[in-house]
Amino acid sequence: MTLTVEERAKVLVEALPYIKRFHGQVVVIKVGGNAIDSARDETLLDVVLLRYVGMQPVLVHGGGPEISAMSERLGLKPTFKKGLRITDEKTMEVVKMVLTGKVSPDLVGAINRLGGQAVGMSGEDGPTIIAEPLDQSLGFVGRVTQVNKEPITALLGRGYIPVIASIGLGYDGHAYNINADTVAAEIAVALDAAKVILLTDVAGVLGVDGEVVAVMSREDARHRIDEGEVTGGMIPKLEACLRALDVVPLAHIVDGRTPHALLLELFTEAGIGTMVTP
Amino acid sequence: MTLTVEERAKVLVEALPYIKRFHGQVVVIKVGGNAIDSARDETLLDVVLLRYVGMQPVLVHGGGPEISAMSERLGLKPTFKKGLRITDEKTMEVVKMVLTGKVSPDLVGAINRLGGQAVGMSGEDGPTIIAEPLDQSLGFVGRVTQVNKEPITALLGRGYIPVIASIGLGYDGHAYNINADTVAAEIAVALDAAKVILLTDVAGVLGVDGEVVAVMSREDARHRIDEGEVTGGMIPKLEACLRALDVVPLAHIVDGRTPHALLLELFTEAGIGTMVTP
Amino acid sequence: MTLTVEERAKVLVEALPYIKRFHGQVVVIKVGGNAIDSARDETLLDVVLLRYVGMQPVLVHGGGPEISAMSERLGLKPTFKKGLRITDEKTMEVVKMVLTGKVSPDLVGAINRLGGQAVGMSGEDGPTIIAEPLDQSLGFVGRVTQVNKEPITALLGRGYIPVIASIGLGYDGHAYNINADTVAAEIAVALDAAKVILLTDVAGVLGVDGEVVAVMSREDARHRIDEGEVTGGMIPKLEACLRALDVVPLAHIVDGRTPHALLLELFTEAGIGTMVTP
Amino acid sequence: MTLTVEERAKVLVEALPYIKRFHGQVVVIKVGGNAIDSARDETLLDVVLLRYVGMQPVLVHGGGPEISAMSERLGLKPTFKKGLRITDEKTMEVVKMVLTGKVSPDLVGAINRLGGQAVGMSGEDGPTIIAEPLDQSLGFVGRVTQVNKEPITALLGRGYIPVIASIGLGYDGHAYNINADTVAAEIAVALDAAKVILLTDVAGVLGVDGEVVAVMSREDARHRIDEGEVTGGMIPKLEACLRALDVVPLAHIVDGRTPHALLLELFTEAGIGTMVTP
Amino acid sequence: MTLTVEERAKVLVEALPYIKRFHGQVVVIKVGGNAIDSARDETLLDVVLLRYVGMQPVLVHGGGPEISAMSERLGLKPTFKKGLRITDEKTMEVVKMVLTGKVSPDLVGAINRLGGQAVGMSGEDGPTIIAEPLDQSLGFVGRVTQVNKEPITALLGRGYIPVIASIGLGYDGHAYNINADTVAAEIAVALDAAKVILLTDVAGVLGVDGEVVAVMSREDARHRIDEGEVTGGMIPKLEACLRALDVVPLAHIVDGRTPHALLLELFTEAGIGTMVTP
Amino acid sequence: MTLTVEERAKVLVEALPYIKRFHGQVVVIKVGGNAIDSARDETLLDVVLLRYVGMQPVLVHGGGPEISAMSERLGLKPTFKKGLRITDEKTMEVVKMVLTGKVSPDLVGAINRLGGQAVGMSGEDGPTIIAEPLDQSLGFVGRVTQVNKEPITALLGRGYIPVIASIGLGYDGHAYNINADTVAAEIAVALDAAKVILLTDVAGVLGVDGEVVAVMSREDARHRIDEGEVTGGMIPKLEACLRALDVVPLAHIVDGRTPHALLLELFTEAGIGTMVTP
Repeated sequence: MTLTVEERAKVLVEALPYIKRFHGQVVVIKVGGNAIDSARDETLLDVVLLRYVGMQPVLVHGGGPEISAMSERLGLKPTFKKGLRITDEKTMEVVKMVLTGKVSPDLVGAINRLGGQAVGMSGEDGPTIIAEPLDQSLGFVGRVTQVNKEPITALLGRGYIPVIASIGLGYDGHAYNINADTVAAEIAVALDAAKVILLTDVAGVLGVDGEVVAVMSREDARHRIDEGEVTGGMIPKLEACLRALDVVPLAHIVDGRTPHALLLELFTEAGIGTMVTP
Repeated sequence: MTLTVEERAKVLVEALPYIKRFHGQVVVIKVGGNAIDSARDETLLDVVLLRYVGMQPVLVHGGGPEISAMSERLGLKPTFKKGLRITDEKTMEVVKMVLTGKVSPDLVGAINRLGGQAVGMSGEDGPTIIAEPLDQSLGFVGRVTQVNKEPITALLGRGYIPVIASIGLGYDGHAYNINADTVAAEIAVALDAAKVILLTDVAGVLGVDGEVVAVMSREDARHRIDEGEVTGGMIPKLEACLRALDVVPLAHIVDGRTPHALLLELFTEAGIGTMVTP
Repeated sequence: MTLTVEERAKVLVEALPYIKRFHGQVVVIKVGGNAIDSARDETLLDVVLLRYVGMQPVLVHGGGPEISAMSERLGLKPTFKKGLRITDEKTMEVVKMVLTGKVSPDLVGAINRLGGQAVGMSGEDGPTIIAEPLDQSLGFVGRVTQVNKEPITALLGRGYIPVIASIGLGYDGHAYNINADTVAAEIAVALDAAKVILLTDVAGVLGVDGEVVAVMSREDARHRIDEGEVTGGMIPKLEACLRALDVVPLAHIVDGRTPHALLLELFTEAGIGTMVTP
Repeated sequence: MTLTVEERAKVLVEALPYIKRFHGQVVVIKVGGNAIDSARDETLLDVVLLRYVGMQPVLVHGGGPEISAMSERLGLKPTFKKGLRITDEKTMEVVKMVLTGKVSPDLVGAINRLGGQAVGMSGEDGPTIIAEPLDQSLGFVGRVTQVNKEPITALLGRGYIPVIASIGLGYDGHAYNINADTVAAEIAVALDAAKVILLTDVAGVLGVDGEVVAVMSREDARHRIDEGEVTGGMIPKLEACLRALDVVPLAHIVDGRTPHALLLELFTEAGIGTMVTP
Repeated sequence: MTLTVEERAKVLVEALPYIKRFHGQVVVIKVGGNAIDSARDETLLDVVLLRYVGMQPVLVHGGGPEISAMSERLGLKPTFKKGLRITDEKTMEVVKMVLTGKVSPDLVGAINRLGGQAVGMSGEDGPTIIAEPLDQSLGFVGRVTQVNKEPITALLGRGYIPVIASIGLGYDGHAYNINADTVAAEIAVALDAAKVILLTDVAGVLGVDGEVVAVMSREDARHRIDEGEVTGGMIPKLEACLRALDVVPLAHIVDGRTPHALLLELFTEAGIGTMVTP
Repeated sequence: MTLTVEERAKVLVEALPYIKRFHGQVVVIKVGGNAIDSARDETLLDVVLLRYVGMQPVLVHGGGPEISAMSERLGLKPTFKKGLRITDEKTMEVVKMVLTGKVSPDLVGAINRLGGQAVGMSGEDGPTIIAEPLDQSLGFVGRVTQVNKEPITALLGRGYIPVIASIGLGYDGHAYNINADTVAAEIAVALDAAKVILLTDVAGVLGVDGEVVAVMSREDARHRIDEGEVTGGMIPKLEACLRALDVVPLAHIVDGRTPHALLLELFTEAGIGTMVTP
């Protein structure tokens, strides 16, 4: 893969229209799950590049597998109800420790090493994310009721990349565990982002024949959810896209296992994963 | 303890000269160890009050006991050398999780509940604290080589109370565990603070007859360390005071078990603990 | 009256909710008449404290007794009509001299001595207060038609305490003597103040049995005026409260003879005088 | 005096080099004594014009004759020692009343009527002028020890014309009566003014043959004072000029009885009075 | 023409109301054609003076005669259709060269020499003026479709006098030649100017008896155009005035051959040329 | 030349270190002569891209061939002395017309079409470039004596790309024709640029065997000039590089005929032309 100088110039020049379009714009990127692992450094390098070419990337992350692993090490058996982790007091303590004390610092450390400047935040900081219980039977699992964008924009305004753990502060003063796709969507709405990109560990939304659906309208996405054509973890992702589209012009579900999937999605014509349009 | 209106007015009016003196000034307060437990809410309420009357409080914390407890739950046996925790890769992971993922969020949450606005930070965020290994035999135990005050002043400038975990980023890209008293001193120097206050769980520096020494000069403090008149955990605290005094006008070692020790130290004539003077 | 450190801390901590509530808010305080004399320094010390804990106090004053005294020394016989001073050309000259040249500088000087920074202003400066004749038969007695808040906010923005003499500039280019309670109310409205406090030399609005009425609604105040249950100088005070309540959330008539009445009113539960609510 | 359009244009165009030279510059103008009376409105109209063409005029005034008149009305006999008013407690009260309560408001009112925006200040406001006793036998007669320019520049920065009474605040918290020429010089120095202009009621400094000396060097001025060639009230004026010249490039003693003397001095080649050069 | 100091003062003072009225206001002045030649330096000196007394003058120019002269030197025969220059590719190149490369630099150079600070701009710069073809048969003759005021206000905000050549950028990326009177009107509208002044080489709009019409209403102007009472080059000038009056309060057609016509128009009662009122 | 997504991502990521290094930095680029013709649009597209990725490009141009062509069309015979155009009054008029009226607008128009925002400036605007005669026998040929960077930084600060014609204003008020390489160097010095890049129409500085010298030290460059190893137009280019190196860290002479030479020089390891190092 030795490229000629002509080829190199061509790639750079072809990125220009995209660089112009997103200049100064906020892009909220949800990383996490297994996706981040296989190509984490490529993904974070992309994020640093976005910052340098004038975009304002915001990272949101959960950390399900790490939470389960730590819970088990501490003798807490993870239990789920309809795919949502039942989060009692002790589990919530693990969630905070893992997301704020391990996943966030790991991402921040990696970005700093790759040449960016990141600052980790929990939704409790500020507080930035206000939550309420989603369902009493799930314990401290929450839904976002309000986003206070001020601490995020303060960091963006000084050139930092915010790395936000998907935890919110309840009106009861207790922390809540919130689905990270949803948090990404709500933050994208609050920041009036140009895009929300949910990195995942599958190729995109699959159609009935197993092919990746490249573009999907709002109505189409709603229809597929209602008809049961999408299932499992893809449902909250699509729902998050639909929520974001109330304000944000474009929402993407992108295969985080592809190296530099972000750059390719943002700066080239190449279609990576599924785009949901308003 | 029912006070007359005259008495109430008197207390408020007597606080005025102190409020004026510290208006707009940074005060760095190290909390943690056991001290914070017995009077944590009173301490944090004091911090919120400091912010409202125009001071700029910055909290620094460690979390030795919590780290030891979590290490043991995870089957890691805490080992120490000259009072310093030997910090291997796995232990450092626990340190980060506990400080950034548990102690910081607990302090932030409590401050938010008490009416302030706090944001948790690790020294890795930004990065704010740059570290180097203290002694190879201790593993990832570090000393501060540089403080980048910008992320802290950004938060102060917008009215937030920064809550900083005593972790630094090494030149090797690895996180380091640093003594929190030292971090408080270095941050106080970087921010040109008016005071550094180390809350502890003893009454102050004790003299040869077991009495609390109310005021101690730099030379006196140096002499007592050199002569072995102070011992154990008080040595790094006094060393931190001496470092801070290179720039900061006053350093205090205060009994954090006394409710509202901060208010009394800052706003009254009452002598609480030991003051070290330049 | 030797207080323990616990008692001192308690008073400071109990003031916190009030300090928070009024942080950054404007409070307009009318001083003067005889009230200011008996506890002037305590009152002004309170004003300085308000500034330091983040409030924006504005003082308004008249100076009836001083005007009468100076008039008599100059051989002008004070004459009144329904409690209002008949103000001819020569009397107006005395009013200006006494309010701007004696009462204002005295208050400014005292505040400066007590540790604050005050600047005296007449409503003619700027001009800040535009007036029109109240009643031709009274001469240069005016009512406020407009407040230009810009010179006041300029001073507040730089940390000064404005001390404003109740004089206005007429459209005819002539100065007018205006009731200071009214001026306080109009300035409070123009500055969107959180409170207006009228210091007086009685205990508050008295009920039919001679007791102080602690709280009074707008309707109640209007009713008492209309029914003749309040009389004399209390009528313009209550009318000023009612005017202020068009915009300002709370108006108080407070006994200025009580030392530190302002602090007690603002920072404690203690009821001092009469509060009029919207 | 009907001028042709060509003549009108010529005058405006000839003013351009002067307008350019003084653009954005501070000019301190001392008015008062009898001078102001005979051509007051012309003088103040000039001041308003200066403001509109981009200069920053600052007025300083005393008010000797008014003080004497009021003292006498109040039964206080004015007494002088070497031309300086012996100022006891009661006299100082009259000085404040007359300067701050009569002369300042009159000037402010007139400027406002003529289309400018003026704000009256005493040197006690802020405090702006710090003073110390000049000579114990004179009572509260002071000399300037320090000028705090901040309140003046705050007003200038918002387009107001400051009108400053020549009173200072002593370290003893007492007000002091100060020579207005001196105050003008000290304020000009503190503000780094481009000019100080002392309006007076004579044609300028007179030479031995009674002619007005148009230009005088520092050395020449010093020589004439030392040799007794100038006498009376002209001595403090020349001393004020000499003090100003420590910092200010030009000092003028101008005949305030000439209508529009300020405009002619600043915007034309016409020599009005005496210019003292460094 | 030797004026007394009294006469000089009088002229300056009489200019004050005008200086006040236009303080900080934008005035767009169209120069060019032959007018500028006979009194160019007087006109530009006036412009410099306007800037110094606080106005924001903007110059717009065409350059018909210079374009024709250069065209002929280059062997291009100027051809016109209804008074508009037929502008083919080669002619447009000459238009740009002459306006941007000769007329603009000449004006800028003269202003700089006269003490102002000017910056030349073409409507293509930025781009500032967006144009579309007026009539295909005329080639690159355009009409303004949009003005982007940002580059002009950037220069005004830093004290520069913008000198704008009447060229626009078409949506086809090609430059267009536009009538300078129209450009002046459109820029005046975009900048919310207080006045637009079109300098010309006749005495003003002439009435049926050959007299200059001093004041003309919008309706009157429209009527005279429709009735054919004005002819030739005066038609586009009046149309430009009418367009400006959609937003701008006053439009003037002034005899540029009169020295200092601008000053006289702006700062005196003297009527110069024709004023069109809304 | 169809590239895979992996190849595209690789190029973008490899540009990151360069983008970071030059973020916010000024780069002065001299275009012109014949070089610009063969690859003008590629060069200008590069310039637009530089702006979008956070650099601050400034273009400087001359226009020798265009000046000669126009001179001849106008019947002026171009004459040279040691490679410098003898510039009499009439020739200078042509220089201004061609550079400011043709070359600048062409570059500005092309940049605007390619998606950037450019503003043309002559060194006379502001004035930005102050010049003095280089040699009386050459007429209006000048050398730079001073650069006033303010108008350039005003444009850069608002996102515009300045396009500067190599003309200066003499102290005599006359325009001067200046070598564009020199102007680029002087502007780079004044703006504290990170790089100056001189585009030319040869491959770089050639060594004695005709090979391109990739890197050359200051001493080496001086030596080659002194020894006559470089000749003709390369001498002023190398002299300009040496002048720039007084302040600017790197100077380049690059082959402008290579498409996207700027991108390749700035964002890749590929060596294009000759780099002169301090």
